[in-house]
Amino acid sequence: MTRTVIRGGLVVTAAEELNADVLIEDERIVALAAAGSSAAEWTADRVIDATGMYVIPGGVDAHTHMELPFGGTSASDTFETGTRAAAWGGTTTIVDFAVQSVGASLREGLDAWHAKAEGNCAIDYGFHMILADVNDASLKEMDLLVGEGVTSFKLFMAYPGVFYSDDGKILRAMQRGADNGGLIMMHAENGIAIDVLVEQALAAGKTDPRYHGEVRRELLEAEATHRAIKLAQVAGSPLYVVHVSAASAVAEIAGARDAGLPVFGETCPQYLFLSTDNLAEPGFEGAKYVCSTPLRPKEHQAELWKGLRTNDLQVVSTDHCPFCFVGQKELGRGDFSKIPNGLPGVENRMDLLHQAVVDGHLTRRRWIEIACATPARMFGLYPKKGTIAPGADADVVVYDPNAEQTISAETHHMNVDYSAYEGRRITGKVRTVLSRGTVVIDGDNYLGRAGHGRYQPRATCQYLDR
Amino acid sequence: MTRTVIRGGLVVTAAEELNADVLIEDERIVALAAAGSSAAEWTADRVIDATGMYVIPGGVDAHTHMELPFGGTSASDTFETGTRAAAWGGTTTIVDFAVQSVGASLREGLDAWHAKAEGNCAIDYGFHMILADVNDASLKEMDLLVGEGVTSFKLFMAYPGVFYSDDGKILRAMQRGADNGGLIMMHAENGIAIDVLVEQALAAGKTDPRYHGEVRRELLEAEATHRAIKLAQVAGSPLYVVHVSAASAVAEIAGARDAGLPVFGETCPQYLFLSTDNLAEPGFEGAKYVCSTPLRPKEHQAELWKGLRTNDLQVVSTDHCPFCFVGQKELGRGDFSKIPNGLPGVENRMDLLHQAVVDGHLTRRRWIEIACATPARMFGLYPKKGTIAPGADADVVVYDPNAEQTISAETHHMNVDYSAYEGRRITGKVRTVLSRGTVVIDGDNYLGRAGHGRYQPRATCQYLDR
Amino acid sequence: MTRTVIRGGLVVTAAEELNADVLIEDERIVALAAAGSSAAEWTADRVIDATGMYVIPGGVDAHTHMELPFGGTSASDTFETGTRAAAWGGTTTIVDFAVQSVGASLREGLDAWHAKAEGNCAIDYGFHMILADVNDASLKEMDLLVGEGVTSFKLFMAYPGVFYSDDGKILRAMQRGADNGGLIMMHAENGIAIDVLVEQALAAGKTDPRYHGEVRRELLEAEATHRAIKLAQVAGSPLYVVHVSAASAVAEIAGARDAGLPVFGETCPQYLFLSTDNLAEPGFEGAKYVCSTPLRPKEHQAELWKGLRTNDLQVVSTDHCPFCFVGQKELGRGDFSKIPNGLPGVENRMDLLHQAVVDGHLTRRRWIEIACATPARMFGLYPKKGTIAPGADADVVVYDPNAEQTISAETHHMNVDYSAYEGRRITGKVRTVLSRGTVVIDGDNYLGRAGHGRYQPRATCQYLDR
Amino acid sequence: MTRTVIRGGLVVTAAEELNADVLIEDERIVALAAAGSSAAEWTADRVIDATGMYVIPGGVDAHTHMELPFGGTSASDTFETGTRAAAWGGTTTIVDFAVQSVGASLREGLDAWHAKAEGNCAIDYGFHMILADVNDASLKEMDLLVGEGVTSFKLFMAYPGVFYSDDGKILRAMQRGADNGGLIMMHAENGIAIDVLVEQALAAGKTDPRYHGEVRRELLEAEATHRAIKLAQVAGSPLYVVHVSAASAVAEIAGARDAGLPVFGETCPQYLFLSTDNLAEPGFEGAKYVCSTPLRPKEHQAELWKGLRTNDLQVVSTDHCPFCFVGQKELGRGDFSKIPNGLPGVENRMDLLHQAVVDGHLTRRRWIEIACATPARMFGLYPKKGTIAPGADADVVVYDPNAEQTISAETHHMNVDYSAYEGRRITGKVRTVLSRGTVVIDGDNYLGRAGHGRYQPRATCQYLDR
Repeated sequence: MTRTVIRGGLVVTAAEELNADVLIEDERIVALAAAGSSAAEWTADRVIDATGMYVIPGGVDAHTHMELPFGGTSASDTFETGTRAAAWGGTTTIVDFAVQSVGASLREGLDAWHAKAEGNCAIDYGFHMILADVNDASLKEMDLLVGEGVTSFKLFMAYPGVFYSDDGKILRAMQRGADNGGLIMMHAENGIAIDVLVEQALAAGKTDPRYHGEVRRELLEAEATHRAIKLAQVAGSPLYVVHVSAASAVAEIAGARDAGLPVFGETCPQYLFLSTDNLAEPGFEGAKYVCSTPLRPKEHQAELWKGLRTNDLQVVSTDHCPFCFVGQKELGRGDFSKIPNGLPGVENRMDLLHQAVVDGHLTRRRWIEIACATPARMFGLYPKKGTIAPGADADVVVYDPNAEQTISAETHHMNVDYSAYEGRRITGKVRTVLSRGTVVIDGDNYLGRAGHGRYQPRATCQYLDR
Repeated sequence: MTRTVIRGGLVVTAAEELNADVLIEDERIVALAAAGSSAAEWTADRVIDATGMYVIPGGVDAHTHMELPFGGTSASDTFETGTRAAAWGGTTTIVDFAVQSVGASLREGLDAWHAKAEGNCAIDYGFHMILADVNDASLKEMDLLVGEGVTSFKLFMAYPGVFYSDDGKILRAMQRGADNGGLIMMHAENGIAIDVLVEQALAAGKTDPRYHGEVRRELLEAEATHRAIKLAQVAGSPLYVVHVSAASAVAEIAGARDAGLPVFGETCPQYLFLSTDNLAEPGFEGAKYVCSTPLRPKEHQAELWKGLRTNDLQVVSTDHCPFCFVGQKELGRGDFSKIPNGLPGVENRMDLLHQAVVDGHLTRRRWIEIACATPARMFGLYPKKGTIAPGADADVVVYDPNAEQTISAETHHMNVDYSAYEGRRITGKVRTVLSRGTVVIDGDNYLGRAGHGRYQPRATCQYLDR
Repeated sequence: MTRTVIRGGLVVTAAEELNADVLIEDERIVALAAAGSSAAEWTADRVIDATGMYVIPGGVDAHTHMELPFGGTSASDTFETGTRAAAWGGTTTIVDFAVQSVGASLREGLDAWHAKAEGNCAIDYGFHMILADVNDASLKEMDLLVGEGVTSFKLFMAYPGVFYSDDGKILRAMQRGADNGGLIMMHAENGIAIDVLVEQALAAGKTDPRYHGEVRRELLEAEATHRAIKLAQVAGSPLYVVHVSAASAVAEIAGARDAGLPVFGETCPQYLFLSTDNLAEPGFEGAKYVCSTPLRPKEHQAELWKGLRTNDLQVVSTDHCPFCFVGQKELGRGDFSKIPNGLPGVENRMDLLHQAVVDGHLTRRRWIEIACATPARMFGLYPKKGTIAPGADADVVVYDPNAEQTISAETHHMNVDYSAYEGRRITGKVRTVLSRGTVVIDGDNYLGRAGHGRYQPRATCQYLDR
Repeated sequence: MTRTVIRGGLVVTAAEELNADVLIEDERIVALAAAGSSAAEWTADRVIDATGMYVIPGGVDAHTHMELPFGGTSASDTFETGTRAAAWGGTTTIVDFAVQSVGASLREGLDAWHAKAEGNCAIDYGFHMILADVNDASLKEMDLLVGEGVTSFKLFMAYPGVFYSDDGKILRAMQRGADNGGLIMMHAENGIAIDVLVEQALAAGKTDPRYHGEVRRELLEAEATHRAIKLAQVAGSPLYVVHVSAASAVAEIAGARDAGLPVFGETCPQYLFLSTDNLAEPGFEGAKYVCSTPLRPKEHQAELWKGLRTNDLQVVSTDHCPFCFVGQKELGRGDFSKIPNGLPGVENRMDLLHQAVVDGHLTRRRWIEIACATPARMFGLYPKKGTIAPGADADVVVYDPNAEQTISAETHHMNVDYSAYEGRRITGKVRTVLSRGTVVIDGDNYLGRAGHGRYQPRATCQYLDR
């Protein structure tokens, strides 16, 4: 047994801010004791001095797409490079998306993703399942996957011909989820209508990246969000809306929550910190910021921050899905619809959200809640993940709230040739990262290894019982 | 130094449910350790076996009126009897209301209440201040009181001629609170309009207790709630609405919160468990249920429960203000407006809310949140009160979730000759209560003493920083 | 030139109630004069005594389906029988729906409907066009039809595989309408989701007519209404929602109108006077009341009446689409989804709405507004149709507000073997009906003839200019 | 008997636009006939050629304050000068406010106002009554006044110590109105709170006119509007909110109307065309624009126009209450609270609203509706006033829609030394005005006389029956 003590820090969880020392035995946190009390006089193999630091749960990023095939290319981070970058950024668990291909079984998709991840991850990981082909067979398979710890299923109201499910398929999947406990995650954009606007824009010679933002109209995100909520009501099912970017979509979710419905919303750093101004950057630079839902005009940011404060939005994930500018984003020169959709971010999330604390958007506790505790609960990983408490996995970050850093592609560890936040100054920086008791980041050194990270079967959503 | 260990229970806080042992040194909790881990092998002077039990923070009742003079009589519980009853019911902190008399200073009122409480309380206590006379002098005094730990101030939109403040006085007090951090607590009923309806009802011979409920119209609670919110917006101040009973008032608060305003709402067990059916009980029995805001028709209960789940209501306090049926409530025979307003409840709150967990209205964690953690944070007592964490005061309740009991005036410990919940069966019961490390309730024995409870100066509301 | 004077009645229009005499020359109203004034001393060929009567504009029924092929059978009223019945009921203009078949042109459909109607109608008529196949060719044809006076186009969000258009087709048609002035009329039900519920209900053995009402969920009408509104916003187009039956759909329309959007709503007598109680009538009787949107629980009626009063609903049409019980409705014995959808009503609308005046739901002027003036304006027929004013077509009804009648299939003139309102007592009855100056109904005599009615090319919606 | 014919114009009413000739006998309109029809071949004593003109009902200005004593001075227009100016501007009826003094009876106030008006008015007039002192006696008098045709009663939530009524008095007056048919008109601003802000502003040296706009906070108009609505709901009474200026107050009214409540809203030209920019004009010029409710920031205008289009606002009156800049407005130099509140406008209303037609804010029919028909119906004058129809009073304006004019104090006829719209170019101009059949304005000539105008006893509000 290895005993590690983290001493002298301010333990910050979603609920508490404590001057407490933390005792870790092997892979688990086993005790917290008031700093300076006799109770904290533990013997230990290793003592980490956290004086002046925050001691926080490792981040849980519930939305990543490592090595995702998309638009004829693949996301540039593998599970190896992506999870290592996550660790650098203070994230110790990701939940990635296994993909069912049309015509194939869930099993095939899940097995393929297990194969990609196994033995390669620096930190722990789980899987959601993308349902691209809802039919009697795949509905039955949902039950099996829930049993194996894949307890959430993503559907798309966008991307006709690729991932798109019509309202009947969505309804059927929601009904099944209502029965088997699977949580439906929704990409809520009216893709059928958007594709008409895409075609019209291209026909009109509007081919630049900024038109990506214009055709994916805010109203069509809000509409789809509303529709998904209503279908969930009909099915008697909960709903988790991914990557909410539009103020009016937040309003739809807020309305549902006021009505007491089990509807949840996620947003991402790109929507909180970037805007259509980036999409309109000159040259083809805007392509770097092409993702769906798209970036919105700046004034939406305030509504997203408000939604995070009022708990109308509960989770900030990254939707990490990087494509290099050279060779990948460039596929869409002259036709914005061919730009691979996605941004890098898995390494930046914890820092950007700490900056939001510094800027007054969030409290410290809310930072941990939206980045660690709630994603863990939402996807059945609590209290192993997402908190610092006796019994939890020893996924712990010692965070220096006063350090300064500048985000840059030159220094980041993601396998992508640009940063969406290039040059941004951040107050706060990860100092030490433990994954299940193992130090994987120590200052500027990566001490982890591919394969340390383990697959985490997940319980069903922990917000659904009263 | 005395060391107490509570072993084998399920520690339930607002945030966590842990199989953890709790170590107490003297008056403070100093450590939590995973049950069965080597870290939990503490030596102790006293071991409390909590196997099969919940280990929860002592309740914080943020709204009591011990020995309050009202309508020519006084609330029948003294600080001694009332705080003892609170302890029996698992509540270890109350925040009572000191009263400024019209024409007198805040200081005089506060001193008088200190005198009533000091040396008499079984558990810890703090004070809010009722502002009955807003003027230049009392506004200045607010600053001083905040410095002394009286950080919340109650105003009345009801009771013209007694506690009533007009909108100008309210605005001025809110402006001052916005400056000095004092939280304005509002009794939100349009008392000016209600008094017209009271007079008309009595003139029409409608004198029974049930007319108390009819004249205090739901619309007039909603209206006042709306008005208080708008005045707070003008003042740039937060607002805490006490004893919300009407569904439409909840809606006003929900709307304000959706807009991101710092508006908070409290409800009470009587509104969750009783209704106008009780006010209409035959004979003069309805008088037992006369309080303001009044009980509402049964269908409001579902909206209150929903509000507690959606966090549009954050706190359940008791508004404990008991008057004996014989000799006190009877003052209003033949004229409902002369019935002293108030119900007993300080002893029943934790049990009734646990019953709500059993009934599926709330999760266990939410039970602790609305009854312990949030009232503590709201009124500046966290983390000393309201949680179980290293460094917190050792106010701890060992709660048996499977015990059964029947509420009755025959067995309760409040100094009042009836129970508002007479005969109600409850699953769950307090087994052991510690107040700052001292066992004050052990099974059926009261081991505490008057004077053990200490005055708690309070910080300002802890929900107002980002 | 023939001069007709209607003397002594109370002229009721959407705007006025006047004691005025009406002068008709040939087919037009040419003057109104104060009763008893020298100005009213006209010489006339024919004088109609309207003492004690209302003199109202002939009804405009903007939603009928004469001889519509549906589900392997056809609506039982031909243009001849249906327009004659309309005249009996005080309706002097209908706007029926020509149907584009999938794969065919609008022109073919319109020509076919002209052929059915021409020479057969007792009263004037116009056409909307059902767009069953939105594509480049049919979008172009829309422009031509607008030029020919077919200025409104119906789309279906229900009936996949028959009339259904997906959101992309809807968007394109709306965009075209925004350009050419065509008004999009929407059948707003999420047919894709409903068909899943239909299949599940039948699979569960739920085959009775009442399940028709259960599977066509209110939420799915509200959802589709919301979606249609959003698509219209994206297209910059107005929207007219047909046969609104659900309270929550009214709320969606009301919200859009509060926002200043050009969104309009129609309801029908069946939703105002009938309910799911009728669908649940024993035996197979419920089949008589099968229509889509379906009848709703009784409590929706109050919201529909309110919507008519607040002008959130503007028009009451019949959606007249009769199928005989014997041989037609019976096609759905054992499978509610095979019951032809539709109710008779063209003869009953004016009387039922007068009953609503008697019952206090509507004012007299509002009766005329929703039944005559607004449908005329909505569909470009004003002021020829829908009012009594100099220059208007002499479509006039002398209505006896005190006569009593009982609705029955035995006495009605529609070609269908049952009445949806069998046995209902009505106060008010048509006494005389003029169509373009010709008396077609005089007491209990039909004096009209097939072919008197003329096709009315229509201007575009008259509510869209400021 | 004198017969006048108005030939060749476009008759525009709230409901119709007709090419019709109008026949007037003595004081009444007796017939309309289609232009060019044989029916229009009347013999006449006088023919007014309206070719190329609109023929519209005379304007009804339901909110004027001729010679009102206010703040130690009096409104500068007498009934003689003010009604003459009204005629110049195409308004043929005003409803002015008789004032009850505190401590005096309604009768005394009404008699005083009758004395001011009688024999002096150029056009017809009626009275509302300001209730400054609600008590048992004045409540009883309300019934009498309704019998005398004074069927509307104004209350103030502003101006404590002058006109202010507390919520109890308001409730009692509303209850009485619910019984006797009197319509309560409300000045909805929270005057109690505003007076605190006024005092604070002055104490802080903020004495310029623009602070008048700042202290009378939008939120405090919206709050009072909400409160008035709720009190009316409690009383079961209708409500007419005068001079709505804030977008959020419109929203309160819209919400009430969506709920089917009989709540009505009036706005005024100053809120539609002027803004806080005017209040902030340099020097003391802003004083010209001081009125209450105050002018709002420009962006409110769009919401007011929208409210007029959606019928959430129904009436545009002027609140005409002129004070000369020299000697009157100047009373408030150095203290904005001493500036007499009020603007001139009775002469400009019809023209400004026609300009709104030209600008696309309103249709022609809506112009007539909000300026003529609805105020007439609202205050029980229809169909004598507000329309052109057989039987109506011959209050008719021949309006040249193409004439151009510039508003200026140099050319206006109101007795005030400035114009709030100085230099504004208007398309449209009154050409001929008839008041009860008498030509009072003919081009640039005033042909009327003091004393032609008659007192109009009014029926109760005509929007309250179904």
